[in-house]
Amino acid sequence: MLGVDIGGTNLVVATIPRSGGPPVSMRTRATRQERGPDAAIADVAAMADRVISETLGRAGGSRSDVLGVGIGCPGPLDLDTGSVLHAPNLDWSGFPVRDRVAEAVGLDATLDNDANCATYGEWWAGAGVGATSLVCVTLGTGIGGGFIEDGRLFRGATGSALEIGHMTIDVDGRICGCGNRGCLEAYASGPAIAARATEGIGSGSESVLSALVDGDLNAMTAETVSDAALGGDGFAAGIMSETAQALGVGLANVVNVLNPERIVIVGGVTAAGAHLFVPLEAEVRRRAFERAVEGCSIVPGALPHTAGVIGAAGVFLAERGL
Amino acid sequence: MLGVDIGGTNLVVATIPRSGGPPVSMRTRATRQERGPDAAIADVAAMADRVISETLGRAGGSRSDVLGVGIGCPGPLDLDTGSVLHAPNLDWSGFPVRDRVAEAVGLDATLDNDANCATYGEWWAGAGVGATSLVCVTLGTGIGGGFIEDGRLFRGATGSALEIGHMTIDVDGRICGCGNRGCLEAYASGPAIAARATEGIGSGSESVLSALVDGDLNAMTAETVSDAALGGDGFAAGIMSETAQALGVGLANVVNVLNPERIVIVGGVTAAGAHLFVPLEAEVRRRAFERAVEGCSIVPGALPHTAGVIGAAGVFLAERGL
Repeated sequence: MLGVDIGGTNLVVATIPRSGGPPVSMRTRATRQERGPDAAIADVAAMADRVISETLGRAGGSRSDVLGVGIGCPGPLDLDTGSVLHAPNLDWSGFPVRDRVAEAVGLDATLDNDANCATYGEWWAGAGVGATSLVCVTLGTGIGGGFIEDGRLFRGATGSALEIGHMTIDVDGRICGCGNRGCLEAYASGPAIAARATEGIGSGSESVLSALVDGDLNAMTAETVSDAALGGDGFAAGIMSETAQALGVGLANVVNVLNPERIVIVGGVTAAGAHLFVPLEAEVRRRAFERAVEGCSIVPGALPHTAGVIGAAGVFLAERGL
Repeated sequence: MLGVDIGGTNLVVATIPRSGGPPVSMRTRATRQERGPDAAIADVAAMADRVISETLGRAGGSRSDVLGVGIGCPGPLDLDTGSVLHAPNLDWSGFPVRDRVAEAVGLDATLDNDANCATYGEWWAGAGVGATSLVCVTLGTGIGGGFIEDGRLFRGATGSALEIGHMTIDVDGRICGCGNRGCLEAYASGPAIAARATEGIGSGSESVLSALVDGDLNAMTAETVSDAALGGDGFAAGIMSETAQALGVGLANVVNVLNPERIVIVGGVTAAGAHLFVPLEAEVRRRAFERAVEGCSIVPGALPHTAGVIGAAGVFLAERGL
């Protein structure tokens, strides 16, 4: 199968074995969204040709052996028509991405949102293997999530389930990009982590962070903060700890609602390791029901950079009953 | 079938037709929990004898025609053993309520928590009929909830799903009975509504509420506040509006996670009508995803006093595949 992961930063195309194992062949290109969706589709088609011919070159067989293509894309999506409604991270609106990719690569196609694909990928082949109920939280420019119960993605009545980045954790708190106050995303997304670090340094906190970005605070990212925390910087460790606390409040809410067996957290900041997971788990334990907490493990994702593309292919198989 | 609803205030026992229609015969007694669980079981057995013989007297047939008994009870419960683990609202601990009721009434029995039973009752025979995904929120001494998708109760990995009363909506907010800060229950449970009204009057707000409780602020209940709001009292209307806002934040979180087709709210304070529902819906609309909000209706329950006992009987039928 072919997996396609369309992101605001990168386009990823890969051939994925039916076992869900790692990609046989994979290509990544910058999305450069300013070029618009047609250019992205052309790139996807070219990358698909490359990975398919590489795979057939190694394994034999013909192009008709490729069952189809699963596509993951930021939302909101209309799953019935296979369209992007309006994806702020892509600047695409009303674009029939499923059919355009299907036509460009000449294969049957399915579409799901990026967080659902990452969730399916971790469940199928990563840190979620074996879990009967699994929440996956994607930490990046935004915060998304997915939920799988008994092997089935839970999508909700209008395909909007698990939008946990916009869960309110502090009713009069920080302003979020969505315009509301106190969303989880306003504390724990990549840009929010960088913004809180920049604010702290702006008000005089001592840290190696300014040196790490050569004094250009606009260059600060969540990864800069995470790296500095790992390197022993006290201020950065404090920012990661506050991030973990906010995430812990959000995940306690998720635990109190969904009572999952496992939560997988994916995204670059999970590299902060214990700086993130220790205070996060303490906050979940403080706020969620004891029985639910005891029945739930919280772990980092096992498929950095590939959960989405593997999961997109897995969703294709599941949707087609293959 | 027989339904049994064991609550902190009342015991309700009723015969429920297989259609889910209203109880054929029903009895209610005060729980008087200080008597302990044995006295409650004896009461349930006596009430069961009465409602069964009344029903057979009307409809004919014999006691062996009664298929079984569904029991609803405050949790947390161990559903495998059919036991109450420790129910603060009943002051029961480690009590095997399912088997004790089964033995006392001589019928096969199932057990589920009170919020799940109310949810099932509203879905089967009340305001949730026809919904493919339904959240029910129970407002009372505590705040609970249940979720039904495709006719099946969602219980979570350890039976602790939909504990929405302890969802954090304000991370440094009011102290909750559970010891945490900012739980939904600390704002919108019956006692929390009464406490916020009492605090306001204590700090000098003008209201008919003091007169309604004859100056005894300890006698204030959520229903007093709701009645005063309906009667035109501005202070009480403000308390109801704040309650609705807090509930709206909590329900926006539920909508962002579960994306249900319908939300049914049950409990005495729903009598406040537009004083509750108008600001509640405005807050949900402000904070939840547009597509999810547009796909979701929020309505009051249709089975006051009977959702729990009807649902308990319905859960029995569903569990036994009848």
